[in-house]
Amino acid sequence: MKRHVLENLMTMMSKLPGFGPKSARRAVLHMVKFPHQLMLPLAEALKIVAEEVKLCSICQNIDVTPICSICHDQSRDPTILCVVESVSDLWAMERAASFKGRYHVLGGTLSAIEGRTPESLQLYKIAERLEAHPEIKEVIIATNATLEGETTAYYIVDMIRPYGPHVSHLAHGIPIGGELDYMDEGTISLAFKMRQGF
Amino acid sequence: MKRHVLENLMTMMSKLPGFGPKSARRAVLHMVKFPHQLMLPLAEALKIVAEEVKLCSICQNIDVTPICSICHDQSRDPTILCVVESVSDLWAMERAASFKGRYHVLGGTLSAIEGRTPESLQLYKIAERLEAHPEIKEVIIATNATLEGETTAYYIVDMIRPYGPHVSHLAHGIPIGGELDYMDEGTISLAFKMRQGF
Repeated sequence: MKRHVLENLMTMMSKLPGFGPKSARRAVLHMVKFPHQLMLPLAEALKIVAEEVKLCSICQNIDVTPICSICHDQSRDPTILCVVESVSDLWAMERAASFKGRYHVLGGTLSAIEGRTPESLQLYKIAERLEAHPEIKEVIIATNATLEGETTAYYIVDMIRPYGPHVSHLAHGIPIGGELDYMDEGTISLAFKMRQGF
Repeated sequence: MKRHVLENLMTMMSKLPGFGPKSARRAVLHMVKFPHQLMLPLAEALKIVAEEVKLCSICQNIDVTPICSICHDQSRDPTILCVVESVSDLWAMERAASFKGRYHVLGGTLSAIEGRTPESLQLYKIAERLEAHPEIKEVIIATNATLEGETTAYYIVDMIRPYGPHVSHLAHGIPIGGELDYMDEGTISLAFKMRQGF
């Protein structure tokens, strides 16, 4: 069957996270029913994003402007800097809407196995930013509570100590709605140790 | 945050089968890392498929030519016609590679609730095809083994009886690798009733 253009599209779709060969096939078969309502607008949207979206030169967030809207927003507190692993983590923080400072996006964690070094993550940029902006009084390290996230956090803490900001990390404990029965022992003992008065 | 082009793309992606808002966000954040290797080629592939793929005027399969490669293939047996619900079912049959006749793709099943009638499915096209091609000696109804699939099958059987072809359906039973413990009662009793000698 001469369906190389379809095969090509399915192969590409199957490489997206969350997609495999079967779900890609299903999505493509769904889309071909709506070429003008779905496929062409999606192709156009992909093209626009590919061409317009770039990394913010200050915080490495993504946006359509060279300096992202958060770095641009003068109403945000310039004295607090929050370090996150990825843009999706930044978006998660923004959805929680409880932080009104600035960000620094690492773009990954340190990993000896996967060859991600302090140089490849350009961690020195955080130090440079602290040096150029002495108004930053607090740095919140909001890396993920994983082994790699914690390792990266400790490395950054050591690096920025000399610049004198207050350094903190997000609280660990039982998530809202979490049931003890489903919680791992590490989280429970940490939550127990960090228990707080009513 | 001024990320309307990103929001737009994520909204579109989230409408694909198998995708929701979260997985669409994850896919988009993955793609923006590779604008030239991933997004632009995907946009181009979507555009090509949207513009080139059409329904075969004979069997309603999809292909880049007005008559699909299966209908075009003179080596395929013109005396057997297999009726399937959808293009994905046709592809599944082709992967099994045990049928070498021609197809008719229904594009859905009869459904009073969802308003799919014999007219909207253009079921009369099967009768037209049998009338125009008296060489068709057997019709295999390969609709899914669901209530709607079976209803559609019975409707088609009634409709094509007068044209005299031998009409069959796919065998029901325990699938290869299936465990009785996980099988529904209907399948087990059917497989029991249809048991075959060694």
